[in-house]
Amino acid sequence: MNVRIALDAMGGDFLAVPNLQGAFSAIKRSLDEGKNLKVYLVGPKERVLGSLQEAIDDPGVDEDYKIDRNQFEKFLNEGLLELVDCTQVVDMDESPGVVVRSKRDSSMGKSFQLVRDGKADAMISAGNSGAVMAYGIANLGRISEVRRPAILCHFPSKSGVTALLDAGANVDCTSEQLFQFAVMGQIYFQSVFEKKDVKVALLNIGEEEGKGNEAVKATAALLKEKMPESYFGFVEGRDIMKGKVDVIVCDGFVGNVVLKTAEGVAQVVKETLKEEFSRNPIWGLGAWLAKGGFMAMKTKLDYREYGAAPLIGLNGLGLVAHGSSDGKAITNAIRIAERYVQNGLIEKLQKAFGDKTEAAALVAEVVGEG
Amino acid sequence: MNVRIALDAMGGDFLAVPNLQGAFSAIKRSLDEGKNLKVYLVGPKERVLGSLQEAIDDPGVDEDYKIDRNQFEKFLNEGLLELVDCTQVVDMDESPGVVVRSKRDSSMGKSFQLVRDGKADAMISAGNSGAVMAYGIANLGRISEVRRPAILCHFPSKSGVTALLDAGANVDCTSEQLFQFAVMGQIYFQSVFEKKDVKVALLNIGEEEGKGNEAVKATAALLKEKMPESYFGFVEGRDIMKGKVDVIVCDGFVGNVVLKTAEGVAQVVKETLKEEFSRNPIWGLGAWLAKGGFMAMKTKLDYREYGAAPLIGLNGLGLVAHGSSDGKAITNAIRIAERYVQNGLIEKLQKAFGDKTEAAALVAEVVGEG
Repeated sequence: MNVRIALDAMGGDFLAVPNLQGAFSAIKRSLDEGKNLKVYLVGPKERVLGSLQEAIDDPGVDEDYKIDRNQFEKFLNEGLLELVDCTQVVDMDESPGVVVRSKRDSSMGKSFQLVRDGKADAMISAGNSGAVMAYGIANLGRISEVRRPAILCHFPSKSGVTALLDAGANVDCTSEQLFQFAVMGQIYFQSVFEKKDVKVALLNIGEEEGKGNEAVKATAALLKEKMPESYFGFVEGRDIMKGKVDVIVCDGFVGNVVLKTAEGVAQVVKETLKEEFSRNPIWGLGAWLAKGGFMAMKTKLDYREYGAAPLIGLNGLGLVAHGSSDGKAITNAIRIAERYVQNGLIEKLQKAFGDKTEAAALVAEVVGEG
Repeated sequence: MNVRIALDAMGGDFLAVPNLQGAFSAIKRSLDEGKNLKVYLVGPKERVLGSLQEAIDDPGVDEDYKIDRNQFEKFLNEGLLELVDCTQVVDMDESPGVVVRSKRDSSMGKSFQLVRDGKADAMISAGNSGAVMAYGIANLGRISEVRRPAILCHFPSKSGVTALLDAGANVDCTSEQLFQFAVMGQIYFQSVFEKKDVKVALLNIGEEEGKGNEAVKATAALLKEKMPESYFGFVEGRDIMKGKVDVIVCDGFVGNVVLKTAEGVAQVVKETLKEEFSRNPIWGLGAWLAKGGFMAMKTKLDYREYGAAPLIGLNGLGLVAHGSSDGKAITNAIRIAERYVQNGLIEKLQKAFGDKTEAAALVAEVVGEG
């Protein structure tokens, strides 16, 4: 199976550079594994190619993600890499609602059009996540019965990985929407990580029954009734990275704050340690000797291992990568998108929500649209 | 000024031991500074005194927080320490609403009664925070015009400390309540940290205008209109520990999740580092040499430095300490409570919300009860 990915070459804080590196490395890796991956690099052609030399020379990039110009050109000639021209780029702080109407020829919008037209199997952007969602809904629509698509993010955890949704698409959620997030999260985890007994929890401010706001309490009642076998109960903020459960459900406001708080804490701990180590040469020497341990920790808890967050509930594959993604993060984003295509994630979600399966009946019953 | 603190001797995961250590150390420190602090140790007398030997022998406690039996008895004889007997203890998982009615002679409730009756200036408990709030409202009531008291917690930050409220008392908040939290947070920070230009921000999922849920957007409009000089705008989860602002406002659901997520991330980073360092003797040696740097970082980012969170909006002083508080955390909780008393925190809040001051007029106008 040849997987085709449309990559928004201008998405993210560093624009074309990491996207060029990621596209190149992902194709190289796929070839090494005997697979054929095709990446569309979508963006104003001159600007994208204008960044190629910078991407090649980039001193910050790991050896594994370096671009070789000859091989890059070979990929272009063989059609494994294809530049798709457009005229517009979406900025990080533009309003999604405005941009989706006013920028019809943006690299983000055009990436979705390739998916809509059947030319690509998935799109990825490290740009403005609100705009990605808006273009996604406009171009692909929602899976039938899905009220609101959500952003599903991955948290590294002691047991491997935990999926959390919604990470920021829907700020106010009803219990019906939260219930759907739980169903989508379960199907996602089963499909992508091939795990049978997926445990789903609700994020709350305590583990005891009766805690929480109205939406959380009503969702708990739904989950207890409709999916008693996979519903774990409540988890708290401190449990997110402990690997107690596979899927954690919350509204997009809470999810976004959680994600950014975790990032902020890790950064402050890192910076504070660095400052302290620099105060004393013995501490500095110790830290230098222990460097391998720090690196191993970083790899284990690195968001870049999962590279991107799917917009789950769209009727097609769209992924948002972190705005500060580097070549490694984009490579991994492409590779996880490949996995979604190969595992038939969208088909499984469509089946659960659209067909007369048990899950669909269950969802239809809850949303009252069956 | 002699400050008198009522300490719930049975509050917290470790019951009497850290409370005995904290009461002792706080009195000792105050004496060293030439002040007279009195601590009421409230709890079933036999159980509290039954833990004294354990508190003295505790191998885990820092040298600075060790109890000397002779001095402890001297404090009792001089009345600097006074045991207040009661018959009941509140468990960590009991329902606040039930407990406040059914356990009228609990260590928690009795501590509040001492404040209500003018015998103590403040109470502290490391127990069930919901129950502390419920007893607080029942015994002390709210400051007039304050709709809902909030839990104010301290985040260590690059610039020192940031206050965040609500950290868990009110799961669903209206914009009027959030606005009051902002006013209370500002007065708190001015009073306790003696800072004039206090910057107040709203926690949101982006910094741009138009982001957020309905309550946050409405609160932003109120703050912009009513306190334009102190209102900073929106901050995100990743900014909490960066020290950009002094006070961060959010609802109690979000605040509680943020607080626990931060705790969880710090713990997972620590445990993962420890595991990695143990895999390789050179890394282990390095970590050992760098130990001082880790300790310095820990001190900087230690929640125990601020020891406790005031229930702000109560018509009197009540503080909740972390459930896992040790002797150091309880000592610091008592010392910050002393500071509140000395700075006249309650009087300042009463004045702002109850009197015909500018703040009161402003608050009255917003809440529509002026």
